Amino acid sequence: MSTEALSSGSTFPPLKAGTLRIYSNRICPYAERARLVLAHKDIPNEVVNIHLSKKPEWFLEKINPLGKVPAIQKDDKIVYESAVCCDYLDQVYPSNKLTPDDPYQQARDRILVEHFGQVTTQYYKMLFGPSENCAAAAETLKKGLMEFDKEIQKRGDFFGGSEPRMIDFMVWPWFERFHATEKLVNQIFISDGSMPNLTAYMDRMLSVPAVQKCRLSTENHLEFYQSVKNGAPNYNVGL
Amino acid sequence: MSTEALSSGSTFPPLKAGTLRIYSNRICPYAERARLVLAHKDIPNEVVNIHLSKKPEWFLEKINPLGKVPAIQKDDKIVYESAVCCDYLDQVYPSNKLTPDDPYQQARDRILVEHFGQVTTQYYKMLFGPSENCAAAAETLKKGLMEFDKEIQKRGDFFGGSEPRMIDFMVWPWFERFHATEKLVNQIFISDGSMPNLTAYMDRMLSVPAVQKCRLSTENHLEFYQSVKNGAPNYNVGL
Repeated sequence: MSTEALSSGSTFPPLKAGTLRIYSNRICPYAERARLVLAHKDIPNEVVNIHLSKKPEWFLEKINPLGKVPAIQKDDKIVYESAVCCDYLDQVYPSNKLTPDDPYQQARDRILVEHFGQVTTQYYKMLFGPSENCAAAAETLKKGLMEFDKEIQKRGDFFGGSEPRMIDFMVWPWFERFHATEKLVNQIFISDGSMPNLTAYMDRMLSVPAVQKCRLSTENHLEFYQSVKNGAPNYNVGL
Repeated sequence: MSTEALSSGSTFPPLKAGTLRIYSNRICPYAERARLVLAHKDIPNEVVNIHLSKKPEWFLEKINPLGKVPAIQKDDKIVYESAVCCDYLDQVYPSNKLTPDDPYQQARDRILVEHFGQVTTQYYKMLFGPSENCAAAAETLKKGLMEFDKEIQKRGDFFGGSEPRMIDFMVWPWFERFHATEKLVNQIFISDGSMPNLTAYMDRMLSVPAVQKCRLSTENHLEFYQSVKNGAPNYNVGL
């Protein structure tokens, strides 16, 4: 993942036949979902990082008209949307399967990811909304996370049970960013000791090899969000 | 589906053991997705309609804290979110399978549904946004639909190919509403003859038994949206 983001004006990096490529971004949490799946399943891949504020023309024309990462490509096959990429990878590379076989558990996990969407909405409000709404968003975020604190107690060490599975890789990227976010907006929503199950979960996730491989440090995240606030997102932080 | 919507203050309708129940709404396009799947696969079910502006307390407490339809329930198993419900039903009731077996085709279909989300965004802007933006939204909606007109030409009589499949039931509910919408907002985005493949598609879909079973008439839709504009949504139109 450690290559500079390609911007508008760049040329399309030639494809190698049979090589799986991921169009990613070192900071984007949605792209991180797919990178976590690739890392966990140990799928050989080539990373092409995309500058999200100055997107290469070829990316919009050839790969994803919606302009979003992640996207994955192998020869003439292109897939995008983070959940679609992750499920596709899990089906096409079935070793170390991440999605539950039981359709009901599968459905409940997808619902949990949907609920998490409500949490992330508050997260983005807090970071990028009007500053006068920040404290209220932090409060709502905390209420949402409290539900996840209760949920993981029912499920085990991970949302996937005794080991991390797809559901964990779908929600983790935002957990990774929470400490940086608290510092940046000067609001506490997870570090006050009120969610012991989730904080223990975060510690456990940090020791998962795929997470270690894909994560950026709190300092890197802090630096990135500061660059966004300054109006010039630095997609190459830490390089 | 033809029962009155239950509102706040109502009591929870007792469950019958082993009976599949769908919490629906006669007008909601998302709920219609799940009803189409139930109808197409001929799955016996009981419909409980929910009043979406005055939701029953028990619906939020027992069934879906997010308050959205569709939700499906069988004994102690509850599933919601339209795409999750549809995929779950297709897995648990495998006869007359609607989802492609090929993971790549599955992924491409999910991406198409995601693109369709951009179309429906314009649709709702047009209907419920500030009236001065209506013409521009209709224009953008038309551009989005043009892509679908090209896409179906590649795919066959239906988005699913030679017969309607999951992808068709995921997008159909909005097509069903287009003629009513054009009349209501006095904008043409599909009836001007510029999308012959899509208009032929709409005719074909109207002859699909599941569609015939689940649809409301253009007049019913017109009456419903008029009631929304008047501030008192009538979820029982046509009863």
